[in-house]
Amino acid sequence: MSNAPSHALSRRQQIVRGELASRGLDALVITSLPNILYLTNFSGSSAIVVLTGDRLFFITDFRYLTVLAEARDTPRECPDLEVVTVDGSYDVTLAGLLERQRWRRIGFEAAHLTVDRYRWLDATVVANGPKDAELVATERLVERVRVRKDACEIATLREAAQRLSLVALCAPHEVRRGLTERDVALAIDRRVRQAGFEGPAFDTIVASGPNAALPHARPGERTITEGDLVVLDFGGVYDSYCVDLSRTVSVGRAGARAREVYAAVREARDCAIAAVAPGRSRFDIDAAARDALGRHGLAEMFGHGTGHGLGIEVHEDPRISRRRPDVDTQDEAVASGMIFTIEPGAYLPGWGGVRIEDDVLVTDTGVDVLTDVTTELIEI
Amino acid sequence: MSNAPSHALSRRQQIVRGELASRGLDALVITSLPNILYLTNFSGSSAIVVLTGDRLFFITDFRYLTVLAEARDTPRECPDLEVVTVDGSYDVTLAGLLERQRWRRIGFEAAHLTVDRYRWLDATVVANGPKDAELVATERLVERVRVRKDACEIATLREAAQRLSLVALCAPHEVRRGLTERDVALAIDRRVRQAGFEGPAFDTIVASGPNAALPHARPGERTITEGDLVVLDFGGVYDSYCVDLSRTVSVGRAGARAREVYAAVREARDCAIAAVAPGRSRFDIDAAARDALGRHGLAEMFGHGTGHGLGIEVHEDPRISRRRPDVDTQDEAVASGMIFTIEPGAYLPGWGGVRIEDDVLVTDTGVDVLTDVTTELIEI
Repeated sequence: MSNAPSHALSRRQQIVRGELASRGLDALVITSLPNILYLTNFSGSSAIVVLTGDRLFFITDFRYLTVLAEARDTPRECPDLEVVTVDGSYDVTLAGLLERQRWRRIGFEAAHLTVDRYRWLDATVVANGPKDAELVATERLVERVRVRKDACEIATLREAAQRLSLVALCAPHEVRRGLTERDVALAIDRRVRQAGFEGPAFDTIVASGPNAALPHARPGERTITEGDLVVLDFGGVYDSYCVDLSRTVSVGRAGARAREVYAAVREARDCAIAAVAPGRSRFDIDAAARDALGRHGLAEMFGHGTGHGLGIEVHEDPRISRRRPDVDTQDEAVASGMIFTIEPGAYLPGWGGVRIEDDVLVTDTGVDVLTDVTTELIEI
Repeated sequence: MSNAPSHALSRRQQIVRGELASRGLDALVITSLPNILYLTNFSGSSAIVVLTGDRLFFITDFRYLTVLAEARDTPRECPDLEVVTVDGSYDVTLAGLLERQRWRRIGFEAAHLTVDRYRWLDATVVANGPKDAELVATERLVERVRVRKDACEIATLREAAQRLSLVALCAPHEVRRGLTERDVALAIDRRVRQAGFEGPAFDTIVASGPNAALPHARPGERTITEGDLVVLDFGGVYDSYCVDLSRTVSVGRAGARAREVYAAVREARDCAIAAVAPGRSRFDIDAAARDALGRHGLAEMFGHGTGHGLGIEVHEDPRISRRRPDVDTQDEAVASGMIFTIEPGAYLPGWGGVRIEDDVLVTDTGVDVLTDVTTELIEI
């Protein structure tokens, strides 16, 4: 179970209930596990929640009954949770509940229900429920609440970012000539766990020499060699929340080109962070990083977005990315309580690359950098 | 990239093409990453494949272009792969391809496309493509091929199971009085990596004392104590393929009740394996385990299925489970080339539990147990 106090869960549920009311929904079927965790503290791997104006049905199987029972009467208990034990399959159990309750307008999460499950559920509910029962697609009802973190989430992510900063302080010392990338990644993973994380938030990246030109390289058998730049990108899950940090180190004295590229990426990181404030456009924050790289002729070498939201998932909204009118224009302004990465990079095929990544919180007045470790180029 | 030789990929693609032809589909949009890996060797985290009678379009983003280029002209190259680089978003790029090619009957994977993506794609393709273009739901076209492993998959899984058996040989020695469950889990994870696995196939389970009554307990701060039964359940990913193994150890001399329960679970494991042969019903294999437990009054203490398929995913078909006519009755007979776990258990709330798990291959004549480590009760 995760860590939010019962009153925080109540508040989150009430906001979502407001969305139900404004859409005229009798109930919302929640199948996204991160959304379920957000609303109930449940961190298991199988559950469906049905939220109504005044009830919360929690469908799960026998494996999790003990965990739920243990949370009862604690300060983290999910208020008013009514357990429905799975009989047969989750969707059969869900359909049975929907039919028994005879709700009419039943919302579902269109981004978290596959077409086959939707069609089966729709056919079953229409066949066996009230004549006018209907499944109504909803988009991001819970996610839109999750994007601005509440006080207990901010406290958790702040603590997590501090712990990950300690890992970042040690990580460069794990980069040693003669070790493979994989060796270094395992050593970083150990430090992530020693720092109190439940585990890594994603597969640790250790990309050395030419591999550093691949933003999502997997650590492999390449040996760390004098003259390499090595991108280290790692994250941790702490009390169900994800943080993410990157640094780039030089094996031996960095050459002139490496220093130039590093300085440009560092400038891009600083400019992007300076552009963060409530009300600012997420596209403008991205542009601040991209423009800085452009001043050094590196704009074309930065193929990914500047950042992504952090929370129960390691990639959440807001996306700090290029303005692409054809793709994604919603929710442009960032707002206080949002937490996201700032991670510009420059990737030169065949040569190598640099990435510097920190985690920031939008405050009421500006920005608070949650990670705390030097951005100076470290030569080892 | 994964490891299948090009001719194996060709064969797999041809089988799926036969399914397209028999359904009158011009193309199949494949969004399931395990299915993509199976057909192309691609093990990255973002891609969409569109397969037609004679072409294979591979949509991915800039991050993976180098990986794809490296596989070219190797014995593991995906034959006739045509790369389409993402411009904007994956789904925008996919829609553009579908419109340009002017296919009419376009299959998609109903179990791997969410309702929101489906609706957007359907609206876009119908608006911009041929007048009679239509998206056609398909179910398990690729999965049904994957369920029977081919020679190179069997070789990979055999090797993986041998390596995991070595881990299982050492794992009991990591269970020491005074350590926490979490300490033991980390030690097992280290051994999994040392054994040559890319990583664990799932979060390692170390469930001690009363926690052993929870089949999916997470390793926590409980200290290993004299008299505990400790369930160890761990897996590894080897060349993109998953194996899975459990043993239960006793801390000190096992008491009479522990011996009884252990012996019953071991008998259930032996009976289930003895029931495996080509043509046998997967429900009957489950019943063999359940009946054995029932002979010892433990049928009610076994709340999960007897086994699950292994492959690119750690939970695949076939499901070796109770016959539930309302839920799942398809594909009842097991067949040669199928690889699955046999993992009966008995869970006594408040007291503890036992699970014994091995991985088996259905052969032309019977069964081959791929894991190879004693099932005697180990007392440490």
